[in-house]
Parts: sequence; structure tokens; C-alpha cells
Amino acid sequence: MNKHLIATALGMALAIAAATSAAVQAQDAHPQQITVNGKSYRWPVKPLVVVLIDGNDPEYVKAGLERGIVPTMKRFIDEGFAAVAVGAMPSFTNPNNISVITGVAPSVHGISGNYFLDPASGKEVMMNEPELLRADSILARFSQAGAKVVAITAKDKLAKMLAHGMNLENGISFSAEKADQCDRRKNGIDHCLEFVGRPLPDPYSVDLSLFMLEAGVKIFERDKPDLMYLSTSDYLQHTYAPGSPAANDFYAAVDSLLGRLVADGAVLAITADHGMNDKSRADGSPNVIFLQDLLDSAFGAAKAKVILPITDPYVKHHGALGSFATIFLHDRLSAVEVMKVVRRQPGVELVLDRAAAARLYDLPPDRIGDLIVIGDRATVLGTRRVDHDLSQLAGHRLRSHGGLADRNTFLMFSRPLNEEYARIAVSRPLRNFDVFDFALNGLQ
Amino acid sequence: MNKHLIATALGMALAIAAATSAAVQAQDAHPQQITVNGKSYRWPVKPLVVVLIDGNDPEYVKAGLERGIVPTMKRFIDEGFAAVAVGAMPSFTNPNNISVITGVAPSVHGISGNYFLDPASGKEVMMNEPELLRADSILARFSQAGAKVVAITAKDKLAKMLAHGMNLENGISFSAEKADQCDRRKNGIDHCLEFVGRPLPDPYSVDLSLFMLEAGVKIFERDKPDLMYLSTSDYLQHTYAPGSPAANDFYAAVDSLLGRLVADGAVLAITADHGMNDKSRADGSPNVIFLQDLLDSAFGAAKAKVILPITDPYVKHHGALGSFATIFLHDRLSAVEVMKVVRRQPGVELVLDRAAAARLYDLPPDRIGDLIVIGDRATVLGTRRVDHDLSQLAGHRLRSHGGLADRNTFLMFSRPLNEEYARIAVSRPLRNFDVFDFALNGLQ
Repeated sequence: MNKHLIATALGMALAIAAATSAAVQAQDAHPQQITVNGKSYRWPVKPLVVVLIDGNDPEYVKAGLERGIVPTMKRFIDEGFAAVAVGAMPSFTNPNNISVITGVAPSVHGISGNYFLDPASGKEVMMNEPELLRADSILARFSQAGAKVVAITAKDKLAKMLAHGMNLENGISFSAEKADQCDRRKNGIDHCLEFVGRPLPDPYSVDLSLFMLEAGVKIFERDKPDLMYLSTSDYLQHTYAPGSPAANDFYAAVDSLLGRLVADGAVLAITADHGMNDKSRADGSPNVIFLQDLLDSAFGAAKAKVILPITDPYVKHHGALGSFATIFLHDRLSAVEVMKVVRRQPGVELVLDRAAAARLYDLPPDRIGDLIVIGDRATVLGTRRVDHDLSQLAGHRLRSHGGLADRNTFLMFSRPLNEEYARIAVSRPLRNFDVFDFALNGLQ
Repeated sequence: MNKHLIATALGMALAIAAATSAAVQAQDAHPQQITVNGKSYRWPVKPLVVVLIDGNDPEYVKAGLERGIVPTMKRFIDEGFAAVAVGAMPSFTNPNNISVITGVAPSVHGISGNYFLDPASGKEVMMNEPELLRADSILARFSQAGAKVVAITAKDKLAKMLAHGMNLENGISFSAEKADQCDRRKNGIDHCLEFVGRPLPDPYSVDLSLFMLEAGVKIFERDKPDLMYLSTSDYLQHTYAPGSPAANDFYAAVDSLLGRLVADGAVLAITADHGMNDKSRADGSPNVIFLQDLLDSAFGAAKAKVILPITDPYVKHHGALGSFATIFLHDRLSAVEVMKVVRRQPGVELVLDRAAAARLYDLPPDRIGDLIVIGDRATVLGTRRVDHDLSQLAGHRLRSHGGLADRNTFLMFSRPLNEEYARIAVSRPLRNFDVFDFALNGLQ
């Protein structure tokens, strides 16, 4: 072999090596980690699916374990990791879903309820719009960095905020509730009903969540996305107690869908936005303190305005009654005087002024009232009696959330924690919004 | 009138004035305020009676209010002040009684349970002895400054620590349990049974608390002491649920005794050491995780030692089962490994290492274990199954406390808060050990 040939062969070899390296680089062109709201998250090694089971009080899982109907979760508990984790206050859907996908508390991300009174406009508005977000979503930032990200929610109220910032040319985001309106440009997928193979679910049904999870499983099987976020509805938990036949059926169905995801190669992470407690009297009637009636009668009409941050477009199953309320004071009404009247109601667990509430529960001070009121484990707060249609409960005991006693949920992973995160797990109480941190940085 | 007479008369007038002033001074010779453990307390203007209703979960009072059987407490709520207050962790009797009478958390006063493992001696001991106290008692400091102080407890386990530092020549302290042994020198009173007019109560009876309160009322009527502290037993709350006939009878009787104290001129302050929750399964059997059995089987015998700080000499009504346990690790057993095994038990709410537990719950790090374990609202923690005699529950559902869900109690006063304390009350959650501060400094 002459020198020329050798030189040519060497050149070719080098060129091939460079091309191969470039191809590998292109295929794998993502950062090692992404920093979102000051926290770093490693790029997923295996596809990660985070499932938020709305209203997943630990009691539901315990009841399922006792009956042996949640074998996938049992395996996660035995072979992965599981612990009780505390949700953000108020223990409602939007503040906690947003805490989970941003990894930070409401004081940072700004979503203080499902609903709030905007001091700027003086209007009461749903907290459904991305304009209200003050923090970045982990989903969006991974999507922008090239990850294939899928975010599906049962109820449409979360859809816009989940999709916000995502690249839907390389991702999917939609709600089961509007699955009939899926559009490739807007949602990254079309013909959802045909794809899932089920009719559009009723928003007031267990099927809404199961449809959403089934869609997630089918998309996972097809696309193996890097990151998937699936967020159910708590219609089941508002309506049925832990251990009831309907609850057991639901958890068995959910468990089976989780099992399919693991079998398909997903790393699974499970959490919840909040727990759920019975808020009824012994006779079965809802245990409500009607705060607006109380304040109107004590101070005169329109001197104080009660806002219920549980309010959302879906009130049938809870009558817009939760264990957290905010109060705006007008005409220089004294916070101390209002506190006196509110606090003496049996069932009120805590009344705090704006500054204390913001400091103690990491809430955005400009998006809560002059006072916050927290009902106890068995008590919900309403506005005026005439404004709540309790007939819609249709004979069910009222089950709801929003208070301190309704924050407990599970953090559960299909794989065990690594050494660093096992140490973290014993050094502080866990939060539901630790889920992406633990799932991406903390598993073996 | 000559100059001499004028001078004499003037001299006499001055002497009389000086003598009068001295007499007033002698009668009223007490400081305006006393500082105890860094907090100042005003000298009581009217006699103050602080009643600690052991295990007084807010649900008992709510049930009483619904039935209209606690008119005195109803009046306190309407005309004085009432709010839910959070007890110290662990939510047991001794740490919380001592927090109440010292005004500080267990990290300061050192009483971390009813029972602990003393690392110095390696022995398990009751936390009944004043030598273990690291803070001054408000009762003792007022007594030393000349106040007439009375401290009575139902159970004898608290008696020594309550009496510690008190001047019993000008005060009274005894336990209802040992009321037959009252001695003027040791207790400041003798012939207690005759004085109260009732036979010695059974330690496992509702009567133990009612005897103690009756003694308090009779001593108050006779002596009008400056400060009185009355601490009941939670036998009733361990045994009977809120709203049950036995619970209602007890609360009606307590309410009537409180009414007598107010009628006699006392300012009343009511709190509790902890709440109380049902810790049974649906079938009525106690919902227990036997931690020592669990650890022995996972790591081998005697590698880890479980200590139950609920343990006291009175275990019949709760079988020494509460929702808080500490674990000492031997042979370099890894905290992380133990946490893994413990945390996966359904019903475990939180596992923390020593440093985190001390920081988060204001506990003395040298008097808790390497790990603490907290059971959830429905779950208690045991050592070995063979060590707990559950037959003693005699068919009752297990009701107990010790955990985070068992901390809620009431703070209640017969008079309204002053402006300063009304503002404090809306700026942070209240603690049961705020009671002396609010009662002496915060009432109108």
C-alpha cells in the first residue's frame, strides 16, 4: 500500500468517524440537564410518565392495597419508592397541578386557586389562562429543548396552562373533555376519539379520567415520548369514599393502565394535587359555613366579599364547596372584627391575614384576599346559601378538599431512590411538587 | 397654732401617709410582670384559671355545641375568644402539659414524650421527673414571686413536674389519683378526699377528671388563688367518640364546673394537650404497625430499637399505642435502609431523621431517636405484637393520638382579646402553649 492510498484511507476513516459523531450528536442533541425556575432536571434516560391522580387521598390506595386490587402500585411500594407527600395550599386542583409542572410553590408560579378576584380589574376570573402564570413549566422547557413531551388532562380547565410553551409540532397536549375537538396544529394530534377508540366521555363521570389514561397509554405505546404528564379528574373521589365498590373499580382500572405503561418501558411517577375528606354531618347533610351570609348579617351587605377559590366550571359534584375561602374587606372594615365573627364558627380551623397566609403557605399575596379562612377536616365554606345548589349532590355525602387536612397525597415511583435522594427523603417532608425532581434526578 | 404644733402635725401626716403607702405596698408587693423563659407575663388582675382538658379534640366541643349542652363554652365562644390551636409534637400529654406551663416548645423545655430512652444511661425512663426539665415553669415563677398558685392534675404522672419550684406554703399542688395521700407540707393541702367530699377515683375512670375539677372549684371558692392550673385525664376521649352519650355527659359536667368558676369571679382559659382520633380498621380492630417486629424481621433482632413515647403507667385504654415512635439504630444500621422499610407501610405518614425532626417540630435532638416515625390519622405504631395487650381495650375501638393529625385543640377564653392580641391571632396559627401569654397579656 503506497503512502497516497494510506493517506486517502486515513482521510476517509477520519471523515467517516466525524460524520458518525455528528449523526450521534444530532440524534442525541439535547442538554444533559435543563434548569427551570432555579432547579435543575436531568434529561430522562428512559421515558418518564408522571401521573397526577386528582384527589388521590392516601386512603384510596390503602383501601386498594388491603383488597389486593392495585398490584402495580403494590410493586412500586415494594420495589420502587412511596411516601406520603404534602400538597400546596390551597389544596385545590389548579394551584397543585401548576406546582407540580413548575416544581415551585404558588408564591412563585402565581396560581392561587381555580378562581380568584383580580385586584387589577376587580373582576372574578378563572385561573385557567397562561397569562396568569409567573413561572416556567418543566414540560414546556423540555419541549423547547427538543424533548418529545405529551401532556393530557381530563378536565379542559387545565388544558391551556399545560400546553403553554410546549412545541406541539413535536408534542401532544389536549383534554379528554374536548377530545372531539383535537387538532393536529393546536394539540399535536387529531381524531382523538378514533385513536382512543372510545366515545367522548361525560365530564361528570369516572370515564373522563379513564379515557384520558387510555389515551396516554395508546400515545405512549405509539410514540414513546421522553416526558408524559397525565392529570385525571377527581369526580370519583368527590363522589365515592375509599373502599367503596366504585372507588375500588376505578383504582383497579387505573392500576391496570399504570401496569401497561411500565410494561411498555416507562418509568412511572405518581402523585396527586390534593386529598379528599368527608365534609358531611352525621345525618348526611353537607357541613357548610355560609361565610357571605354570616358577614352580611354581621356587618351589612357588601362590606366584605367572599371568594371561593375551589370554583370552577364543574360544580355538580361538590357544589363549589371546599375548605378554603378568601375574604376581601371593603369600607375599611377591620380584619380583626371579621376574624372575630368568622373564627367563632365551629368548623373554622384557621383565619389568617394576607401577609401571614402568604408567608406561611407560600401564596402570592396579591392573589389572595385580605383574610383567608380554612375549614377543618369535616367542614366546607360557602358564600351565600342561595348561591349553592346542593340538590346537585343527588343524595351523595359531600366529599371535598381545600384545607390543611386535605393536603396529604402519595409520591410513588416505579424505581427506588438513589442514595442522594434517599437521604433527602429522610431529611424533610416531601411535597407533591417534588415529583419531577425526584423522578428525573432521584431514581436509580 | 404655733410652729412646733404645725411641724408635729405635718410630721404625723407624713408618717401616716408613709405608713399607708407601706401597707398598700406590702399588700400589693408583687412585680408588674414576670419574665419566664424569655417571655413576659403580666401579674393577674383577676384570678386566672387555666384548664387543660386532656385529649380535647375540637370535635368533642363541636358535638356539645350542636346539642346545646355546653352553655359556658358557648358563652366563651360568643363573648370571649375561641380558636383552633396546634399542639406541640409529639402530640402526647407530658410534652404538651410542659409546653403549656413553660410557654415554650419541647426543644427548650426538654420533655420529648411521656417516656424516652436516655442516651446518657442507656435506660428507658418515664419523663416524670423535674430533673429532666430544662425550662422554668410559669406557675413556679409566679409562686416564687408571691402569687398564690394552685396546680392540680388528674394523673399522678404529671404531679412532680407541675409542683416543681412552687412555694407550697402559699400554694397547692396534688394529683387526683393520689388525693388520699395529700399532705399539707408536700401538697399545701391535706384531707383532700374529705375536702372534695368524694371517694378516691379510679385512675381508669371519667371520675378522675371530674374529681380533680371539683377539687379545683372548691379550692377556688375558698382561696381565690391568683393562678390555677387544672389538668384532666384523657380516659374519656380514648374510650368514647365525640357525640357519644358518655362524651356528652362528661362535657356537660365539665362545662357546668367551668360555669361555677366564672360565676365565682375567675377568668377562664381552656386548652388541651392534644386531640384524639379513631385509629381502628373498618372491622373495629386496632390499626397498628408493629415497628419492632417489622425491623427485627428486616434487619435481624436488636439491630434497631423502637421506643414509644406515649408509654406511661396507664396503658389500659390505649395499649401504649400512639401515632409517634422513635427508632434508635445499632451496629451502624443505615437510617436510609430503615426508612425504606418503614415508609412503605401504608399508614406511615412521615419518617424523618433526628436533625430534621428536631428542626421541623422543635424537639430536643438528644432526647429523640435516630429516626422518628409518624402514623397517619387512622394508624398507630407499636413495638412487638406480643408487647401490646390489646385485650384491655375491652371491645372499644382504639382511639389515640401522637401524630400530626392529632394536634388540633381549642384555645378558649372567657373574655375577648385586647387589640394587640386580636392582631396577633390573625397573623399566625395559635399554639396551645400560647395559653398563659394570651390569658395574662392578651385579654380585655
